[in-house]
Amino acid sequence: MIETIERQTKAKVEFQEITGEIQRLVESASIETGMCHVFVPHTTAGIIVNEHADPSVVQDIAECLNRLVPQDSEYHHAEGNAPAHIKASLMGSSLTLPIENGKLVLGTWQGIFLCEFDGPRRRNIVLNIIKA
Amino acid sequence: MIETIERQTKAKVEFQEITGEIQRLVESASIETGMCHVFVPHTTAGIIVNEHADPSVVQDIAECLNRLVPQDSEYHHAEGNAPAHIKASLMGSSLTLPIENGKLVLGTWQGIFLCEFDGPRRRNIVLNIIKA
Amino acid sequence: MIETIERQTKAKVEFQEITGEIQRLVESASIETGMCHVFVPHTTAGIIVNEHADPSVVQDIAECLNRLVPQDSEYHHAEGNAPAHIKASLMGSSLTLPIENGKLVLGTWQGIFLCEFDGPRRRNIVLNIIKA
Repeated sequence: MIETIERQTKAKVEFQEITGEIQRLVESASIETGMCHVFVPHTTAGIIVNEHADPSVVQDIAECLNRLVPQDSEYHHAEGNAPAHIKASLMGSSLTLPIENGKLVLGTWQGIFLCEFDGPRRRNIVLNIIKA
Repeated sequence: MIETIERQTKAKVEFQEITGEIQRLVESASIETGMCHVFVPHTTAGIIVNEHADPSVVQDIAECLNRLVPQDSEYHHAEGNAPAHIKASLMGSSLTLPIENGKLVLGTWQGIFLCEFDGPRRRNIVLNIIKA
Repeated sequence: MIETIERQTKAKVEFQEITGEIQRLVESASIETGMCHVFVPHTTAGIIVNEHADPSVVQDIAECLNRLVPQDSEYHHAEGNAPAHIKASLMGSSLTLPIENGKLVLGTWQGIFLCEFDGPRRRNIVLNIIKA
């Protein structure tokens, strides 16, 4: 079952949590055991799982990526968003999560984040919920 | 259904696009909805999705990785290709893509790239096309 | 079929190989063709495939990550383990491997490693073994 989530990002760089919406779609799929594949069909955004209890964790990830891939370095790509493309591949575009007892298996501290690196933009997240 | 693609890389570091070949194999599998798992069975190559319209994007990714993981740093691994191993894990060895209406779901700008970090070599890419 | 592996890590940063245990669980599942999804339900640990023949390869990966994400940089997260969270997302929390002829498809040099970045801790690894 393929579902698409739409999100509006509000800043150039923003880690937006999407756990609740994915969890609800998984629960409504009524699949006891399986997996949920999450895919970002964009080249300047990524997808990760990391801590959602303290929002400073994703702020630290974003700032570290800014240091590793500085905006003012020299790039060939002429649109000014080369760092966003590089960060997207460092974080990844594809994430798979287990489904057990009809719910996503996530650790206590884990949340799913859309990683915007070239916002603000309208973004899609493609979910593929598969029965085992 | 498991299929193996073979590719020859031509440079030490090279991002070689493999989208067309994967799309054709997915189409010939005649699966309406499902997923395509792409795996690189090598330790000095990776796999990503990023922009394929402008080849300078993957050139920027390659050059940024060269800065982050310099060839002339000190490494324990004696074969001289420690940076290639590190870059492979930064990009990842495994990628999953949704299949809808018998085709890969990819964004307008997205292409699939084999990331060679220790070429030139003969490389395999293992595809696993699965019905949902 | 969902299975959980438990591992005790012994150092702050440690790449612990878990290939053998996953291979045995895959073989006991008696699935001819399919995939094995490996998920780490933690926010300061990751999962990768890389060389297992020479242990200095994962040592080089760990040391390079220490240089890229230094412990003594400035972070907002107050628990002192912000670098562990960042490294976890650079390596990733989710990995999928093909199963063919009842076994994991892995390259000659490939092993699966749990990447501990904030140990020593008790860690779980969630396996989801799926028939194609």
